[in-house]
Amino acid sequence: MSNKIITISRAFGSGGRTIGREVAKRLNIPFYDKELVEKVAEESGFHTDFVEEAGEYAPVTSSFLFNIAVSPNPMAMMNTMSMADQLFICQTNVIRRLADEGPCVIVGRCADYILRDREDCLHVFIHADMEHRAERIVRVYGETKQSPEKRLAEKDSKRRVYYKHYTNRNWGDAQNYHLALNSGLIGVDNCVDIIVDVANKMK
Amino acid sequence: MSNKIITISRAFGSGGRTIGREVAKRLNIPFYDKELVEKVAEESGFHTDFVEEAGEYAPVTSSFLFNIAVSPNPMAMMNTMSMADQLFICQTNVIRRLADEGPCVIVGRCADYILRDREDCLHVFIHADMEHRAERIVRVYGETKQSPEKRLAEKDSKRRVYYKHYTNRNWGDAQNYHLALNSGLIGVDNCVDIIVDVANKMK
Repeated sequence: MSNKIITISRAFGSGGRTIGREVAKRLNIPFYDKELVEKVAEESGFHTDFVEEAGEYAPVTSSFLFNIAVSPNPMAMMNTMSMADQLFICQTNVIRRLADEGPCVIVGRCADYILRDREDCLHVFIHADMEHRAERIVRVYGETKQSPEKRLAEKDSKRRVYYKHYTNRNWGDAQNYHLALNSGLIGVDNCVDIIVDVANKMK
Repeated sequence: MSNKIITISRAFGSGGRTIGREVAKRLNIPFYDKELVEKVAEESGFHTDFVEEAGEYAPVTSSFLFNIAVSPNPMAMMNTMSMADQLFICQTNVIRRLADEGPCVIVGRCADYILRDREDCLHVFIHADMEHRAERIVRVYGETKQSPEKRLAEKDSKRRVYYKHYTNRNWGDAQNYHLALNSGLIGVDNCVDIIVDVANKMK
């Protein structure tokens, strides 16, 4: 059993969720993905569908970090905040609490940023080229009217904007992660092996 | 022996060169770092010191890719090109030729971009946090008047500008590499193990 908190950020269709689930199983630690959405929904009062979608892809306008920075009392701002910003704060609190509870794997939701100051974390980014991801999303989620390439480009763009808005970092910048892996070339199973191995070797 | 061409891009002070040398030794394939500089110097007629410095850190002004794109005959432009641009073209030719000759490890010099269309490459990025890199550059290169943090920030900035200028990509973007590793957390020896393992498993 690893004593580490592992965050998995991922490009849509790269198999990051599958990899995270397998890593958690191999290390015998909890896996938070849908369970995280449910906890946030319960705590915030928002519907799970809204948490699911707006917790990573919200269309955002004014600067959240700026609003927080200039407010003398950020919590008092909750009443005037957009739903997306309220959701982000709630998500932040839930993720911090889960990390405090012990080793686990957390997928997405800016967890790498939210837990950036903890030293017991392994931050991972999973991506793959367009061809591999397109094949995967059709296989896993089925066909839609939009081409898989267009769906991927849209998801990437929304995730990039969301991440920048709430973290002021560039999504997918290697220096934000300890490990970044191209699952298309390396393969899903080998990605799991590498992450488990690094987690086990961490002091 | 791996049949792969491995490019190692790295943040200054992250141990990328040491990792590359060790990977080449373990896979029993040639390692090109200083040897690459010498080949480029020989071919271009430039001094090795100029190739060493300007081949990754040139102060650049006008857009190289734009100039190439609008020129009906890029090679005919050589006479009116800046020395940095001439060096980049020469470096590109040498790197392509080395890759054609067979499996090897190439450190730096935008090799990941230059060889981006080959399918037999493993592109690796090595980085580490400021603290690890500062400790390493003082240990390896000694003290200077400038603080190690300032030296690192300057090198990072010049490398980022150089890379953007010649590739139109963002330096350190995880999606440009198959593997990106934080050598500070993972450790130099473990980075070598991971790269060797992935190279051996590649089809």
